[in-house]
Amino acid sequence: MHYSQFLSLIDILGTATFAISGAFSAMERKLDPFGVLIIAFVTAIGGGTLRDILVGNLPVGWLTNETAILVIFSAAIATMFFGAYLKHLQTAFFLFDALGIGLFTIIGLEIGMQKGFSASICIALGTMSACFGGVLRDVLLNRVPLIFRREIYALACIAGGTAYYFLRKTPLNEDVSKIACIGLIFAIRWIAVRYRLSLPRFYKDEQLNG
Amino acid sequence: MHYSQFLSLIDILGTATFAISGAFSAMERKLDPFGVLIIAFVTAIGGGTLRDILVGNLPVGWLTNETAILVIFSAAIATMFFGAYLKHLQTAFFLFDALGIGLFTIIGLEIGMQKGFSASICIALGTMSACFGGVLRDVLLNRVPLIFRREIYALACIAGGTAYYFLRKTPLNEDVSKIACIGLIFAIRWIAVRYRLSLPRFYKDEQLNG
Amino acid sequence: MHYSQFLSLIDILGTATFAISGAFSAMERKLDPFGVLIIAFVTAIGGGTLRDILVGNLPVGWLTNETAILVIFSAAIATMFFGAYLKHLQTAFFLFDALGIGLFTIIGLEIGMQKGFSASICIALGTMSACFGGVLRDVLLNRVPLIFRREIYALACIAGGTAYYFLRKTPLNEDVSKIACIGLIFAIRWIAVRYRLSLPRFYKDEQLNG
Repeated sequence: MHYSQFLSLIDILGTATFAISGAFSAMERKLDPFGVLIIAFVTAIGGGTLRDILVGNLPVGWLTNETAILVIFSAAIATMFFGAYLKHLQTAFFLFDALGIGLFTIIGLEIGMQKGFSASICIALGTMSACFGGVLRDVLLNRVPLIFRREIYALACIAGGTAYYFLRKTPLNEDVSKIACIGLIFAIRWIAVRYRLSLPRFYKDEQLNG
Repeated sequence: MHYSQFLSLIDILGTATFAISGAFSAMERKLDPFGVLIIAFVTAIGGGTLRDILVGNLPVGWLTNETAILVIFSAAIATMFFGAYLKHLQTAFFLFDALGIGLFTIIGLEIGMQKGFSASICIALGTMSACFGGVLRDVLLNRVPLIFRREIYALACIAGGTAYYFLRKTPLNEDVSKIACIGLIFAIRWIAVRYRLSLPRFYKDEQLNG
Repeated sequence: MHYSQFLSLIDILGTATFAISGAFSAMERKLDPFGVLIIAFVTAIGGGTLRDILVGNLPVGWLTNETAILVIFSAAIATMFFGAYLKHLQTAFFLFDALGIGLFTIIGLEIGMQKGFSASICIALGTMSACFGGVLRDVLLNRVPLIFRREIYALACIAGGTAYYFLRKTPLNEDVSKIACIGLIFAIRWIAVRYRLSLPRFYKDEQLNG
C-alpha cells in the first residue's frame, strides 16, 4: 500500500471511530436519532473545527469535505442499527482511535507550522485537533469532559506532537517523521491502557492539607 | 402586506419568540437579570452566529444588526416584567416559533448555496441556523440540549430545507419557494405537536439486547 | 512607573489571576493536571478569543502572544504546586481580578470602536472580553456559569464600558479615560463585594405569583 493511501486510510478509520464513539455516548444518554447524529458529527469534526476557527481557516474544512461527511453519517447510522455487534470490536476501535489521534495531531501541527506559530502553539493546535471533539461531545452531553480525568490521552498527543515539531526541524524526511510520531502516540496510548496508567488527580484543599 | 414586509415580520416575531423562550428558561433556573439577558441573546442569535463563524462571514451578522439587538433586548425585559402574563400567549409563541425556524432555515440555506456548498451542507447550515441557539441556551443552563430529545423539531427544518434546496434548482420563483418551505416546516411542526409525535429514542445496550 | 508599563502590569496580573482562579476551580472538580492547565487557559483567554472570533480578528490574539501563554502556564503550574499557600492571597487576587476586568473591558471596547460598531455592541464586546472566560470555564466544569448568579460583576464592566465609550467621544485624553474607567470598574466591584450587593434573582412562576 502506498504511503499516502495509508494516511488516508487512517484518516477515514479514525474519523469513523470518533463518530462511533460519539454515537455510543449519545445512545447511552438516550438521545433521539437526530441527537445521536449530531453528537457523532461533533465528536468527529469538533477538534478540526475549533483549530480552523482559531487560526482563521474559514470556511472550516468539513464544509467542503464530502468524504468525511459520508464517513461520519454512515458510522452514526451503523452504530444506531448495529450497536450491539459493534461492541465486540472494541479492540479494533481502540487501535483506530490511537492511530487517528496520531494523524490528527500531526495535521494540526502542520497547519500551525505553516502559519509560523511558536512550538508551544503548534503543539497545542495539534493536541486540540485530536482531542477537542471529545470535549465538545461531553459538553453537549452535560458532563465534565472525560479527557480532563482520563488515563494518558492528551499527553500522548502532546508528546508525539513535540517530537514531530522538532523532527521537522531536522533534515529527516517528512513522511518518516509522520510515521514515527503516529507510532509514538500509538505506543504511549497502548502502554497507558495496557498498564492502566493515568495522571494523578487533585483533591479539595481539605484533602490536600489533611 | 408586501411580501418582503411579511418576511421581515416573521424575522422579528421569530427572533422575539426565541429571546422570550430563552428568558423563561433562564428565569426558571433562577438566574439574575444579567444572566436572563445573556441567555435570551444566545438563544436568539446563537444559530446564525455559529453558521457565520463556520462559513467565515465575519464579523458575525448581529454585530451590525441594530434591529435584532433592540428586539431581543425588549423581549427579554418584557419577559422579566410581564412573564406571568406572557404565559397566556403560549399558542401565539408556538406559531411564531414555527414560522421563525422556517425562515431561519431558509436564510441559512441561501448562505450555503451562495458559497456553492453541497446539498447536505446547505441543509445542515439551514437547520443549524434555526436550531443551534436552543442548543447553546441549554449548554449554558447546564442541561442536555432539549432538541436532542424533543418531538420533531430539527427534522422539520431538515425536511423543509431539503425541499427548498431542490425547489431552487427548478425554475420556480424564489419567493414562492420560500413561502412553500416556511409553510412546510410550519405544517410539520403543527402536526408533530398536535399528535404528540416524536422520534424513537435509544436505550442502553442492556435494554437493546433484553 | 510609566503609564504603558502600568497597563502591561495590570494585563499580566489580571491574566495570571484569571488562570489561577481557573486552576483552583478545576482542582476542586478533581481534574488531572492536563485538565487543570486547559481550564486555566480557557478562563484566561476565553473572553478575548470569543471577541476575536465574532469580529473576525483571526488568527485569535493569544496564538501569537508568547507572554500571555507563559504567564498562564506558570500561574497554572504554581497553583498546582502551591495552591494551599496561594489561598492566603485571596485579597490580592480580588484586587488583580478587579483591575484585570477593567483593562480587558477597555481592550474589547477599543476593538469594537475601531470597527465602527454601535455603542451597545462595543460595550457588549468589552464585557464579553472580561467575563466570557469564566463562562467557558463553568461550561467545561459542567455548572451554570457563576456570572449569571453572582454579585455585581458583569454589571461593573457594563457601567465602566459605557462610561469609557462616552468619554472617548469627548476631547478627554485617552489615557486618562482608561485610568478613569478601570478605576470605576474597580470601585464598583469593591463596593459590591464590601456590601455583599447582588442583582435580584427570578423565581419560578409559582413563586412569582404566590
